[in-house]
Amino acid sequence: MAKINPISGFPEFLPQERLVEQQALDVIRHVYELFGFINLETRTVEPVDVLSGNGDDKEIYAVSRLFADEGDKKEATLGLHFDLTVPFARYVQQHKGELTFPLRRYQMQKVFRGERPQEGRFREFLQADIDVICENELPLYNDIEVLQSLFTALYCLHDQLGLPAAVMRLNNRKLLEGFYLGLGITDIASTLRTVDKLDKIGADKVKELLISEVSLSNEQAEKCVAIAQIKSHDLSFVEKVRDLGVEHDLLDEGLEELAEILDQVQAYKERNCPEDVKSDVMVDLSIARGLAYYTGMVFETFLMGHEDLGSISSGGRYDNLASDEKVKLPGVGASIGLTRIMSVMFKRGILKPIKKATADVFVAVNDMETRIKAQMVAEVLRIEGLRVEISSKDNNLGKQIQTASKKGIEFVAFYKEEDQDAISVKNIVTGKQVNVRADDLEKVVNFIEAE
Amino acid sequence: MAKINPISGFPEFLPQERLVEQQALDVIRHVYELFGFINLETRTVEPVDVLSGNGDDKEIYAVSRLFADEGDKKEATLGLHFDLTVPFARYVQQHKGELTFPLRRYQMQKVFRGERPQEGRFREFLQADIDVICENELPLYNDIEVLQSLFTALYCLHDQLGLPAAVMRLNNRKLLEGFYLGLGITDIASTLRTVDKLDKIGADKVKELLISEVSLSNEQAEKCVAIAQIKSHDLSFVEKVRDLGVEHDLLDEGLEELAEILDQVQAYKERNCPEDVKSDVMVDLSIARGLAYYTGMVFETFLMGHEDLGSISSGGRYDNLASDEKVKLPGVGASIGLTRIMSVMFKRGILKPIKKATADVFVAVNDMETRIKAQMVAEVLRIEGLRVEISSKDNNLGKQIQTASKKGIEFVAFYKEEDQDAISVKNIVTGKQVNVRADDLEKVVNFIEAE
Repeated sequence: MAKINPISGFPEFLPQERLVEQQALDVIRHVYELFGFINLETRTVEPVDVLSGNGDDKEIYAVSRLFADEGDKKEATLGLHFDLTVPFARYVQQHKGELTFPLRRYQMQKVFRGERPQEGRFREFLQADIDVICENELPLYNDIEVLQSLFTALYCLHDQLGLPAAVMRLNNRKLLEGFYLGLGITDIASTLRTVDKLDKIGADKVKELLISEVSLSNEQAEKCVAIAQIKSHDLSFVEKVRDLGVEHDLLDEGLEELAEILDQVQAYKERNCPEDVKSDVMVDLSIARGLAYYTGMVFETFLMGHEDLGSISSGGRYDNLASDEKVKLPGVGASIGLTRIMSVMFKRGILKPIKKATADVFVAVNDMETRIKAQMVAEVLRIEGLRVEISSKDNNLGKQIQTASKKGIEFVAFYKEEDQDAISVKNIVTGKQVNVRADDLEKVVNFIEAE
Repeated sequence: MAKINPISGFPEFLPQERLVEQQALDVIRHVYELFGFINLETRTVEPVDVLSGNGDDKEIYAVSRLFADEGDKKEATLGLHFDLTVPFARYVQQHKGELTFPLRRYQMQKVFRGERPQEGRFREFLQADIDVICENELPLYNDIEVLQSLFTALYCLHDQLGLPAAVMRLNNRKLLEGFYLGLGITDIASTLRTVDKLDKIGADKVKELLISEVSLSNEQAEKCVAIAQIKSHDLSFVEKVRDLGVEHDLLDEGLEELAEILDQVQAYKERNCPEDVKSDVMVDLSIARGLAYYTGMVFETFLMGHEDLGSISSGGRYDNLASDEKVKLPGVGASIGLTRIMSVMFKRGILKPIKKATADVFVAVNDMETRIKAQMVAEVLRIEGLRVEISSKDNNLGKQIQTASKKGIEFVAFYKEEDQDAISVKNIVTGKQVNVRADDLEKVVNFIEAE
């Protein structure tokens, strides 16, 4: 085999780390299934023209056969998907005749982005998404439910795995766009993109850029910066926006939607989250989201004490991404960037690789004859749902117990030379031990369950 | 969004089909965990020089940024992995200092092959693998355990999902190579490759090619064809090989290994598989496996009545794939080609998309006021572990029940206009219904569990 090295940006976990990631996936799956979401997977590749214009095109990975022939050249250029929203929208549009709406799906797959690797930024990473797409009309309740589902998933990750509490920061594209339109701004996209930099470059610099690059007046720029600085945990943000004196129908609509969403998600939190848990939801009008396809609610999520990591879960409402001329297919969704969370939490010592062993019982083996007996013991225990590893070597018992101990396995079963019709089972942590007749293996199960 | 079409060779399932695939993955995971295997995922890309020479190089997909710059050109060329064995061997070699051996892992990921798409052949498909790799020495028991684990997984898929019974066909590279060496044949690789075509082109044609292309004598070619035609369910194959009058130490070793493996897996089957189940294991000396890295046991698996589909699960022993000059890391593994099985079984009507709904209860909604009540009902039921979908629309009750019915959801909960402090729960299949006070929702759970 050729010399082997890690590839920058393509992370891999050790087995005990992967156990934690797998546990996180199980928690997320369980929560999303409780909320009535169904699982889906889409192909890893999309035609490049489906991907283009929905993200940063420079980050698209193209795929082609290493030894391409004439036949390949006739086919469309393929790229690896960079998120799960664009492929899902394409999937729904393609299969709309075969689907039952509203379609609520969760999807957990690797995505690929050719960006410069740095802490918490990867070229291949696992995303866990939920989305609801419906024909014609998708009421606002769906935005609320998506946020409630996500809130629950993040709360359960906090509660069950020890992940830091998460704070969801909400905004609304209609609110921002209506505000800009009310100010007489026409280049909405450039204004959004510039305001999105507030966190990184500060208010003064954003104002400067809005004047110099987007050609806003001093007053327009000032108000854009002012609205972006509004944050609140309650409905007081409505008053604060009104105080800026801008009027537009779209702004009213956005304010109303955002107020309704905040209210409902806050109430959900109060009903379902213990008071001492810091998981939270709030309005933050600086959240703009880079992607062009959002049309209403948008949000980002930060882990408390690890805000430097950036948003670990984001999403929003997209009314047109899956729609075509004939059928309107509005959608709303949320995505958890799981690899980013896991990787940094391991590095910072917040999450610890699971000590949990990969088996409950390790069956030691003396020789070929006891191996066959050992197998039969294993078969009985597995039927009882116990995870059993049979020693792959028949070296001395001490060494086999060492192997079990290294693997974190609590129970070792073994035969004694002098009595091959009985098996001994020892808890190698407590030292407690029982001897069980070969025809009475049920007792092994009882012993293990009682310990 | 651009015009959308399926991409040949990149299959996608509908939600109800994916449910079956997910169920299959859960069954496989459960079995492999009972056998003490731990889960791992490796990155999707490998440097092309890690992939090359271990499969069909023409099938490798290369990956590069669509808009590559100077920095990219300095990096190694990357390709998508075409199986999970080569990446796992690379992973073990790379991380050997951090792993506990023997490492028993299962891995379920998509792999990519740029081959001509046809029925049961895909360019992207899901594989479910198990492998054991150990430092220095890996006793033959591991080959036996891998086959027993796989046998159990395939048996459970048969038993729980209704997949056809599987027949595992075993051979051994040492046996074939020893036989060829005993015959004085020097070009082992070409002989293996030619004999591997027996199924497709027949015995006469294979003999002809062995003489014309591999330059074997008539007698050598005849014996190569003769041994490849030996099949048996018991140890009689040893005698049949001996009768061909060829002698070589490696042949003896191969015969002994294969006899031991067949014996143990047969005995396992007899102990664990009901007599009326046709799942089976046998020796078939025509099984050669195309891949260069196998060094001992090799096998392929066929579904009864669907042999035309080709092998659905294969693998073997590889003593050198993960090894380097300093450390020997022998391995043995088995792979299930899940997408191939699922896709063809759906098409042939053997597997049916699951009718199972994505939720247990559908909560209907009259208006904003009942929506908030409906949410609280959903929250209580979810805590009890019930999967609940709240109607995303507040159109009339009949339409909402229709939606629930279309989704296959059995229970609908709804509020009556005249009494908003009670909720009615109806089994829309049997028509049975209860009315429950809002402060006594426990009764909803009881009703659903009793139905």
